[in-house]
Amino acid sequence: MNTTDSTIEGPRGLAGVVVTETGLGDVRGREGFYHYRQYSAVELAAGRSFEDVWHLMFRGTLPADAAERAAFAAETAGLRRLPAEVREALPGIARAGRLSGPLAGLRTALSLLGASAGFRPVYDLDPARRAADALAACAAVPTLLTALHRLGLGLEPVEPREDLPYAANYLYMLTGEEPDPVRARAVERYLISTVDHGFNASTFTARVIASTGADVAACLTGAIGALSGPLHGGAPSRALDTLDAIGTVERIGPWIRERVLAGDRIMGFGHPVYRTEDPRSRMLRDIALGFGGPLVDFAVEVERQVEEILAELKPGRELHTNVEFYAGVVMELCGLPREMFTPTFCAARVVGWSANILEQATDSKIIRPAARYTGPTPPQPVPLLD
Amino acid sequence: MNTTDSTIEGPRGLAGVVVTETGLGDVRGREGFYHYRQYSAVELAAGRSFEDVWHLMFRGTLPADAAERAAFAAETAGLRRLPAEVREALPGIARAGRLSGPLAGLRTALSLLGASAGFRPVYDLDPARRAADALAACAAVPTLLTALHRLGLGLEPVEPREDLPYAANYLYMLTGEEPDPVRARAVERYLISTVDHGFNASTFTARVIASTGADVAACLTGAIGALSGPLHGGAPSRALDTLDAIGTVERIGPWIRERVLAGDRIMGFGHPVYRTEDPRSRMLRDIALGFGGPLVDFAVEVERQVEEILAELKPGRELHTNVEFYAGVVMELCGLPREMFTPTFCAARVVGWSANILEQATDSKIIRPAARYTGPTPPQPVPLLD
Repeated sequence: MNTTDSTIEGPRGLAGVVVTETGLGDVRGREGFYHYRQYSAVELAAGRSFEDVWHLMFRGTLPADAAERAAFAAETAGLRRLPAEVREALPGIARAGRLSGPLAGLRTALSLLGASAGFRPVYDLDPARRAADALAACAAVPTLLTALHRLGLGLEPVEPREDLPYAANYLYMLTGEEPDPVRARAVERYLISTVDHGFNASTFTARVIASTGADVAACLTGAIGALSGPLHGGAPSRALDTLDAIGTVERIGPWIRERVLAGDRIMGFGHPVYRTEDPRSRMLRDIALGFGGPLVDFAVEVERQVEEILAELKPGRELHTNVEFYAGVVMELCGLPREMFTPTFCAARVVGWSANILEQATDSKIIRPAARYTGPTPPQPVPLLD
Repeated sequence: MNTTDSTIEGPRGLAGVVVTETGLGDVRGREGFYHYRQYSAVELAAGRSFEDVWHLMFRGTLPADAAERAAFAAETAGLRRLPAEVREALPGIARAGRLSGPLAGLRTALSLLGASAGFRPVYDLDPARRAADALAACAAVPTLLTALHRLGLGLEPVEPREDLPYAANYLYMLTGEEPDPVRARAVERYLISTVDHGFNASTFTARVIASTGADVAACLTGAIGALSGPLHGGAPSRALDTLDAIGTVERIGPWIRERVLAGDRIMGFGHPVYRTEDPRSRMLRDIALGFGGPLVDFAVEVERQVEEILAELKPGRELHTNVEFYAGVVMELCGLPREMFTPTFCAARVVGWSANILEQATDSKIIRPAARYTGPTPPQPVPLLD
């Protein structure tokens, strides 16, 4: 499609333009509610395992019984180990990635994994084979992330364990120690709440690439690339950095006032979609309160004072904590190093991206909008130099 | 953005929806004309070097004089050599990529290169630094492609030469021998004609990722992924495979008739945008005719008979050769192996993608459309299993 022949003027950034129908979920910003298929995501996080939600996103239903749950968990756990040629390449990828960060490392490693596993274009595969490629990619992400992290620190990667659930195994591979069940469950709830969230830029990227029929690794590496962009949204470590910058309870008021009066954004507050409290934030605050301790008390006090100061200085402007704020606190309490906050997000979101890729692969229409040429009128004669 | 709050129904695949303004070029399907900035792409291919066109796309103008041309050529030639840590990783990438093909290898290697070179998010960089990252990525693509190809054959990579132009150096690295000037120029004209072509799916992918502010390697790996999709368009080797399948002049008529009557698509014919002859096809046929020989005679005869048979069996349906048809013939005549046809396309298009990324980086609005949820109404209670 090109602009001279026929065009429809799109809103800036295509905001609000419906690209596709989806059965995977949605965000209702005015209600402060989001869902995966027909279920509240927060309720799923409260009552189900990560693997159950993965099953829901990939297969359309929650496991119907304990046998189905166990079979899916075993299937995915069996895919955690990396092929030898990927494992051998990781030290080099970790070395090269020290400047551009962990998402650049994951992008490279997952691209390699897909090539090594012989992923085929989604349009050339039947749905079962496509889903098998996606399953393999998702199952490998925690192994890749933790191995790259440890190699970057000069440590040996820890081999995955098949007997641990997804979240617990992730923490285990990070530290080499079996995590305590409360922390593992807190991280699991965070991961479940992060699987999908409407039609964000990385999800859209994954679907655009899938719409060309490319393989699952091609789609996922594009999505990881989009996630690495500063405008995509999240860096839960930034909110924690803000808590560090404030430092003490006495400094909260002056620090926040100064920022608000200067018109600066306060990291961890505000969301482009939610007009109410972010439902993920509410859930994560509850988890944080369950842990308790000085960091949680401090975070709660910062939240209280920010809302108070905003009500005073910017009346009528609803600005609540977003997912970053308490996600950072919870991950810190669970012992995750700060540079692994965004990678941990990725370890969950890869399941949402993959479900979107599998759904897009059932549509045969390429996503290909148009641009409007606004330069000097062609053709002008090419000035020759020779 | 989400569907419950506010939406505009987009056409399927967003066809014809204008996402952005561009000064880079356009395709005029009805006129059979496409251009880079204000110049006919075909005219540029006839009269300019690849580096000149690269300069045009990146800097907005053709080099004004011989000194500017030489300076840019020297600058890009100096970026052809790979960093040691990328070079060391290539044998592993080549080994892993043997199943998924050369674009999966390039995707991985370019991702690694960007990480290794410490590419930063485009929104964090000034325009000069962004352009420097893009220049480095483009300059390395031929080196990566040829090294991976040779490693896949069990051969040592050939180090780039700075004294050769882009296209000649590409052919040199592929074979280890300096190409004859006629073939090098034919490939150069093909590469120039391939730099950009409207707002195709891989270009759009690159711009979506760039709109999040991600680094140049993140954008390019996504674009390579989109290009690897079977619906993206081209595989010039398929058209050549068709010539092989027909085999002899006597078989042309029966073979084509059988396909047309069965409703099959004939590879190398037809284009979604051009209603006239594809201007790239016209140019490449002229180049092929300059070489002459039995393959060219055969291709010309196939083209003639296809158009004749279509006029008879499907009157009124304009169906001409597309870029694939004679691109395959020209690349075969220039000694490029068939599995390198699409990678060679990539060695040119990476300049177009990069110019689009640099242009997108000047816009601060994320590209983020919406989806419409059409599944069962939420929230439904989560059935608990435990």
